[in-house]
Amino acid sequence: MDLLNRTLSKITDLNRESMKRSRARIDSLIKPVGSLGRLEDLAVQVSGITGELFPNLSNKAVIVMASDNGVCEEGVAAAPQMVTRIQTINIANGVSGLGPLARISGAELVVVDIGIMTDIEHDKIINRKIRYGTDNIAKGPAMSYDEAVRAIETGIEITENEIKNGRRLIGTGEMGIGNTTSSTALLSVLTGIDPQNITGAGANLPIDKLDMKINVIRQAISINNPDKNNPIDSLAKVGGLDLAGMTGIILACAANKVPCVIDGYISTISAILACRIAPLCKDYIIPSHHSMEKGANIASECLGIKPMLYMDMRLGEGSGAALAFHIVESAVLMNRDMITFEESGINAV
Amino acid sequence: MDLLNRTLSKITDLNRESMKRSRARIDSLIKPVGSLGRLEDLAVQVSGITGELFPNLSNKAVIVMASDNGVCEEGVAAAPQMVTRIQTINIANGVSGLGPLARISGAELVVVDIGIMTDIEHDKIINRKIRYGTDNIAKGPAMSYDEAVRAIETGIEITENEIKNGRRLIGTGEMGIGNTTSSTALLSVLTGIDPQNITGAGANLPIDKLDMKINVIRQAISINNPDKNNPIDSLAKVGGLDLAGMTGIILACAANKVPCVIDGYISTISAILACRIAPLCKDYIIPSHHSMEKGANIASECLGIKPMLYMDMRLGEGSGAALAFHIVESAVLMNRDMITFEESGINAV
Repeated sequence: MDLLNRTLSKITDLNRESMKRSRARIDSLIKPVGSLGRLEDLAVQVSGITGELFPNLSNKAVIVMASDNGVCEEGVAAAPQMVTRIQTINIANGVSGLGPLARISGAELVVVDIGIMTDIEHDKIINRKIRYGTDNIAKGPAMSYDEAVRAIETGIEITENEIKNGRRLIGTGEMGIGNTTSSTALLSVLTGIDPQNITGAGANLPIDKLDMKINVIRQAISINNPDKNNPIDSLAKVGGLDLAGMTGIILACAANKVPCVIDGYISTISAILACRIAPLCKDYIIPSHHSMEKGANIASECLGIKPMLYMDMRLGEGSGAALAFHIVESAVLMNRDMITFEESGINAV
Repeated sequence: MDLLNRTLSKITDLNRESMKRSRARIDSLIKPVGSLGRLEDLAVQVSGITGELFPNLSNKAVIVMASDNGVCEEGVAAAPQMVTRIQTINIANGVSGLGPLARISGAELVVVDIGIMTDIEHDKIINRKIRYGTDNIAKGPAMSYDEAVRAIETGIEITENEIKNGRRLIGTGEMGIGNTTSSTALLSVLTGIDPQNITGAGANLPIDKLDMKINVIRQAISINNPDKNNPIDSLAKVGGLDLAGMTGIILACAANKVPCVIDGYISTISAILACRIAPLCKDYIIPSHHSMEKGANIASECLGIKPMLYMDMRLGEGSGAALAFHIVESAVLMNRDMITFEESGINAV
């Protein structure tokens, strides 16, 4: 709990002076004021996060938190649970959906086993297993409160290590069969929204099993009775280790003044959790794509973000975050490399 | 007219066999079927355009058509007309909004003076002036039918030259003070939609001048009486040289089987025009961003595209197309570099 508390105490407001200078420069560039829209806002936000006008964000990574979910035994996922392990190895090998999208963006992958149900020996998978998967939330809590804190702190440690080694832009990713079930349960607890309205098909669950998935989520909430005003209690009771790890990533980015690009549905719920723990971290979060998962719109609204990319994607892994890195870097270069009206001579016309 | 006719005769249906193979491969990759959404569709489209499964699109350019609009004398633009010339030079120098966005995407800029009202000596601006700006469409036709054809053919020639020299992905861009007026007039003619519903503020025209702009557009249509069933007649009477040049870019891309990423509002209207001339060229067009210009939604619907990027941009120049190149290349690399279920061993689970 010490690391978590130290991290929370380091999260401050954005650098408003830096944002003012960034906005003033952008408004002086040779374009109609405001005409680059959210690209301008991104440049200002990144200046506020980093304290620099033109931070170099080229050293960047997607951190992928991989873990298993005990609730799979209820049949809520189309894929066998073993796929978490296989796909985590594929991600680490750079051959899953995330790999090419990260490579073309110049981003590294940091893959963390934060709770896969079997042991993995792989030189590109960091073993930070908190436990061998969560327990089945339909029957009891996913994990203990202490384990939830340790999983968040694991996310913090991994992220701080990356930042210490030079990362200046970080994306969140996850892998865990069954994690749309845990995420949706957590979203329902944190927002009070009925599971019926936010439960989707995840990774192609057959439509005739959707009611069963909704009932499992309802049961998980009723049996565990999480305290919705206590985000870590809610996480421990109906969440997952991947969600906890990503919450740690987001908190660590905010504490260390590094912009954090979140992926789609599941990442957004981790971001909501992080903001419940530390509301100021909202300003360090950069949205990416609009997920096709049913609850994604509500999750985005709840967090208060608007996605930038509308690609009808719903893969997870951090694929949308990787695709959005290019936009974030473009925003900074726009501000750095355009000239001002004064320099252009247009004022003299 | 010969070049235009030859170009039109070369535009064929996409390579359906190539698309089938591309889709079959994508459906065999290690992800839930369909979970990469429009990224998958893009990869299939690009395979259909090029006939290759994994075309290398890295040699790419935004072609910027720059020209003046005589209608500026009606006061429809906030910026002085001389800004077309100054900003075209800034674009060629890579210091406008387009420059940084093209550079980070690895795209070259090809800047064409297709009708700026003054002569320009600049080693990076190709002089293909059809005339010194259009005439004022509120008083008569923008140009002759023959000039419109020659401007389209200029776009074709420039584009075919780029393709001959190795470009495999092309974006459309424009510069021309007053061109939201000509574009909106053309959109109104081609769709029958009242100018009131599609006329926006362009480059920050004061709101109290919007009714005047609408009236100028109405007058341009009524005085010229364009034949809405004849796209080139409509273009000549109420359009612009930049619009004509971009129409040529799009037709040439389709004729030469090169994917064409269109920018926002004005590019979309050129694309509508190109599709009225040659309906098959629609399949060679890739959308980019959702422009904030008022008529942009209607223009996109009319063309039958859905933008991918929602950045609230409205700069033009080709800035949105440059930002979208990364997505198109990402789509191809996704298909090329992911492994299949069979290769991954997941089928064996």
